[in-house]
Amino acid sequence: MFGPLNPRMAATFPPPVMEARRWLEGIEFPADRPLINVSQAAPMEPPPEPLRQAIAEAALTETAAHLYGPVLGLPELRAELAAQWSAAYGGEIAPAQVAITQGCNQAFCAVMATIAGEGDEVILPTPWYFNHKMWLDMAGIRTVPLATGDNLIPEASRAGQLITDRTRAIVLVSPNNPAGVEYPAEVIADFRTLCRRHGIALILDETYRDFHSGSGAPHDLFADPDWADTLIHLYSFSKAYRLTGHRVGAMVAHRDRLAHVEKFLDTVAICPNQLGQRAALWGMRNLGQWLAGERAEILDRRAAIEAGFPALEGWTLMGAGAYFAYAAHPWPIPSDDLARRLVAEAGVLLLPGTMFLPETDTGARKQVRIAFANIDRQGIGRMFDRLSAFRP
Amino acid sequence: MFGPLNPRMAATFPPPVMEARRWLEGIEFPADRPLINVSQAAPMEPPPEPLRQAIAEAALTETAAHLYGPVLGLPELRAELAAQWSAAYGGEIAPAQVAITQGCNQAFCAVMATIAGEGDEVILPTPWYFNHKMWLDMAGIRTVPLATGDNLIPEASRAGQLITDRTRAIVLVSPNNPAGVEYPAEVIADFRTLCRRHGIALILDETYRDFHSGSGAPHDLFADPDWADTLIHLYSFSKAYRLTGHRVGAMVAHRDRLAHVEKFLDTVAICPNQLGQRAALWGMRNLGQWLAGERAEILDRRAAIEAGFPALEGWTLMGAGAYFAYAAHPWPIPSDDLARRLVAEAGVLLLPGTMFLPETDTGARKQVRIAFANIDRQGIGRMFDRLSAFRP
Repeated sequence: MFGPLNPRMAATFPPPVMEARRWLEGIEFPADRPLINVSQAAPMEPPPEPLRQAIAEAALTETAAHLYGPVLGLPELRAELAAQWSAAYGGEIAPAQVAITQGCNQAFCAVMATIAGEGDEVILPTPWYFNHKMWLDMAGIRTVPLATGDNLIPEASRAGQLITDRTRAIVLVSPNNPAGVEYPAEVIADFRTLCRRHGIALILDETYRDFHSGSGAPHDLFADPDWADTLIHLYSFSKAYRLTGHRVGAMVAHRDRLAHVEKFLDTVAICPNQLGQRAALWGMRNLGQWLAGERAEILDRRAAIEAGFPALEGWTLMGAGAYFAYAAHPWPIPSDDLARRLVAEAGVLLLPGTMFLPETDTGARKQVRIAFANIDRQGIGRMFDRLSAFRP
Repeated sequence: MFGPLNPRMAATFPPPVMEARRWLEGIEFPADRPLINVSQAAPMEPPPEPLRQAIAEAALTETAAHLYGPVLGLPELRAELAAQWSAAYGGEIAPAQVAITQGCNQAFCAVMATIAGEGDEVILPTPWYFNHKMWLDMAGIRTVPLATGDNLIPEASRAGQLITDRTRAIVLVSPNNPAGVEYPAEVIADFRTLCRRHGIALILDETYRDFHSGSGAPHDLFADPDWADTLIHLYSFSKAYRLTGHRVGAMVAHRDRLAHVEKFLDTVAICPNQLGQRAALWGMRNLGQWLAGERAEILDRRAAIEAGFPALEGWTLMGAGAYFAYAAHPWPIPSDDLARRLVAEAGVLLLPGTMFLPETDTGARKQVRIAFANIDRQGIGRMFDRLSAFRP
């Protein structure tokens, strides 16, 4: 008995990553066979030494690093991101079109709160990122799933058939979480054209942009001088600079929309934490070369995933890229049961498709997400060995 | 033109503190007469040196200080707060009943999201804390204002008359923001009894508890073994340890409610930032003595406020305590116009009553909030001089 409960919150599913952590309770992993944890897209190493020193230096010497700052973020960081993105995407992005948030999840919630409310609809390609679904559920917004084919790439023409007078936005994540796939530039452009025609927002979450396998801009949306009438771009500093524990993300959007985003962020955050923002700024200014090395390493791990899957009997690798592999397993076991069994019997923690798909989707039982970026080539080899040896 | 706008967000007022900052634009303050900024409850000094060193040390040496952590916060910090609060309030609070958040504003939003949604009602005594009102507006929850008398203390019996079948919670802030007043223990107990009788939640925001003028527990609600059926307590580490820029707050509530809070926090935050949590923990463990000195200083400033107001012609000090004085001015100028004029003509930035009251409340035009904790006795004297010299 703890008083009134908002029925919307009651109907929202619990955090998948925390639920998966609970599967570990009571299970002992022998020292010579430790758990292989591929459940969360999270670097396990700290940021490089010079960045840690920059954080320590700010903590010791800079008063402003401990005090409230502007709701929409550190002006220098907004300007840096605007400048780097303008160059990278071949477009014009002003500092006033950038907001810094307490992580990229918060960027999504904040901007969605300005777009849609009770009874509105938002289109998410499936498999979806579970925290997007959770926010829509809490906010009373109806999620309209957009099925993707075997290649896991959504099609704008199919999305068009789902648009109603309550549709407010379409959300794309590229490189995709959970599916790993990189959406081709033309696909992203098609979605922009569709959204513009219907006067709805296109939210493009590029959290994993730094690990895209292509060189050059992954899309040309910012090259359109009118991009801000439709496009909202989301980004995270967490993966690039190993700052997951600092909670710093960003959004790029029309400056008039940011005036509304500011209301949400003032109420929910007041401001992003100051040390994290300084860490992100230092990273952007100094770690370009280092980040290129990180990307090469992740692409090498992806190659190891793609090379190893064919030998894994009965499995199908559906998508791989950035931090994730998305695959179909061969056994007549629902994916959530399988995931729990793999913890105890194979020492592997991955997330089941049930966490990324509507209950009615038959793929939910068959599919799993593997956040392979957390483990090196050797670890990937060990994971394949364990999955091969597993007997259902 | 920037696409769809959620009408609820359009109807939410902009962040008062950011609006007040904009009043400063284009105004030059002479070096010998700098702005006196009493607009925001924000220490202007950094945390004490040893705390800054502890933060730097964690940044340099502790890998976990840079990585994701549990959604509900650092286990050691939850345990420390549970232990210290159990002792301070003479009750039993378990670590599992504590959640750490990205600031206390977020604690409010997170717990309110578990309590009330579209069409529900929440009772706020007036004047209210503006960010509470903003969240309710965004969430489609109807704010029911509870008028307070000249002493600014709400009465449970009057609140009882406002309860309907849509009422989900009553929110108390003590010591109060913006009114400064400390609610007597019996008043708080009356509200608990009222809420329990109606099966609604009592949210008690004690952000300013460390600066309460009384010794001993400010209320006995935690001494009731069944406290968790009704009470939700909110706290901020920002004021006590000068950590406003680190964004760390806390809530204490029934553990089953925290399972729902966890859904919100996972989606909006993933986890509180790790360095800020370590700073808060270090502060709780090492700065008890230092904090006692901070409290003595704030109480001294409050005494200076109370001593100075009678000489301020025509003004009425309505409430003073913790960080705030709340007062009625003598002039036939609406408070928001007055506040803007005081910036230019008196070099004083305070917040008008319009930011803390419903538009229909006649007090809105007459009242102002002065966040005096930011300025020392000398600064308070200068502020009185400037207000005395002002001619409408």
